[in-house]
Amino acid sequence: MSVRARGLRVAVWQCGSLPGDIAGNLARLATAAERVDADVLVTPEMFLTGYDVGAVPGLDPAGPEFAAVAEVTRRTGVAIAYGYPEALPGGGIANAAQLVDGGTSVGRYRKAHLFGDLDATRFAPGSDFPVFELRGRTVGMLICFDVEHPEAVRALATAGAEVVLVPTANMAEYPTVSTALVPAHAREAGVAIAYANYSGTEGALDYAGLSTIVGPDGSALVLAAADGEALLAAEV
Amino acid sequence: MSVRARGLRVAVWQCGSLPGDIAGNLARLATAAERVDADVLVTPEMFLTGYDVGAVPGLDPAGPEFAAVAEVTRRTGVAIAYGYPEALPGGGIANAAQLVDGGTSVGRYRKAHLFGDLDATRFAPGSDFPVFELRGRTVGMLICFDVEHPEAVRALATAGAEVVLVPTANMAEYPTVSTALVPAHAREAGVAIAYANYSGTEGALDYAGLSTIVGPDGSALVLAAADGEALLAAEV
Repeated sequence: MSVRARGLRVAVWQCGSLPGDIAGNLARLATAAERVDADVLVTPEMFLTGYDVGAVPGLDPAGPEFAAVAEVTRRTGVAIAYGYPEALPGGGIANAAQLVDGGTSVGRYRKAHLFGDLDATRFAPGSDFPVFELRGRTVGMLICFDVEHPEAVRALATAGAEVVLVPTANMAEYPTVSTALVPAHAREAGVAIAYANYSGTEGALDYAGLSTIVGPDGSALVLAAADGEALLAAEV
Repeated sequence: MSVRARGLRVAVWQCGSLPGDIAGNLARLATAAERVDADVLVTPEMFLTGYDVGAVPGLDPAGPEFAAVAEVTRRTGVAIAYGYPEALPGGGIANAAQLVDGGTSVGRYRKAHLFGDLDATRFAPGSDFPVFELRGRTVGMLICFDVEHPEAVRALATAGAEVVLVPTANMAEYPTVSTALVPAHAREAGVAIAYANYSGTEGALDYAGLSTIVGPDGSALVLAAADGEALLAAEV
């Protein structure tokens, strides 16, 4: 008799943007982590500040916002992958995500594929695709446009990732990112992907919703509606 | 005022296999072409003989089976892309598809990506990805496993194809070919794809059905059920 390894229970949190209100977003994140039954919760892209909100402050990845998220992970037992603007050591800002578990930073990722002027005028691109150990599984992160490039997903899979966590801010014009590209790139690389998007409007943007978690065979385990908030989990 | 060019109305015919009965399959094809409202009808892979039917005869692409299909296209006004085993000039057999319109051969394609022993023990692979003019549009063909390779779809798009016609024999284990890979590869290459599969069982195979036509944005215009016969058309 063999014992099957327990999967990682991943949750995507689809929500509206609360532009510029970092304290308010941290409070909302705490509530979501308290409600969810999951090993790890993924937020949308640039969740702490919002995405299409003009200039954003560069945050210290070990600063007070991190400390607040870390406290939530310690208290709830839920790891969190959250999007935020990261102040770079040499100046400039990255469109970043940080994975935190049990009060400790597990790893960080910086968006490599910047999307149009909205990203390019504010952010410096990342160039690394690191993987991390999370509760016995190997995970990587990508942000939004990154996951539309099969090479980025494959780079993480080649490095050993079994699960890819993707904060995103995908617009309503592109629903097939959720329904076609994410499933295909998961299947082609043989990894699970958790894709957490905004819904509703923010600045000039109308978001697509359709947050999803897909298995390594390309099947959708959960798929949120185009509108409204959703907190959906699946074991991958 | 501008006049929008009329699209190409494409139909996928999902049906069961009638193994080895070429005359019976030609009769069924005639009936389907009479019923459908479309510019072009796509059959499953190796439709004339069936797919998992053991050794197959190599057919002359200009022989009596072609003549029968050509007569149907002339009589019904519907072009047909059909799968068949093609006798190669130097010996051997290709897993092939031929596009016929108004009684004339528009072009032929030979499957390049052979799938496992079932293909490899019977067929010689093709190596060309030609495109053809069909009623004012540029079209290409792929067969089954070919379309799971984004490079094959892109090769046709690069050569000018706007629509890719794909006879297939995809098994029930792989439903995400229809729901993920075909839509993603259509979107990534910017072409429409018409993917016509078998349903039901044949030899050792249980087919997936899920025949589909997707637009160049990756959206499914039609998607057949996993079971049963279907004759579905969409303008692309």
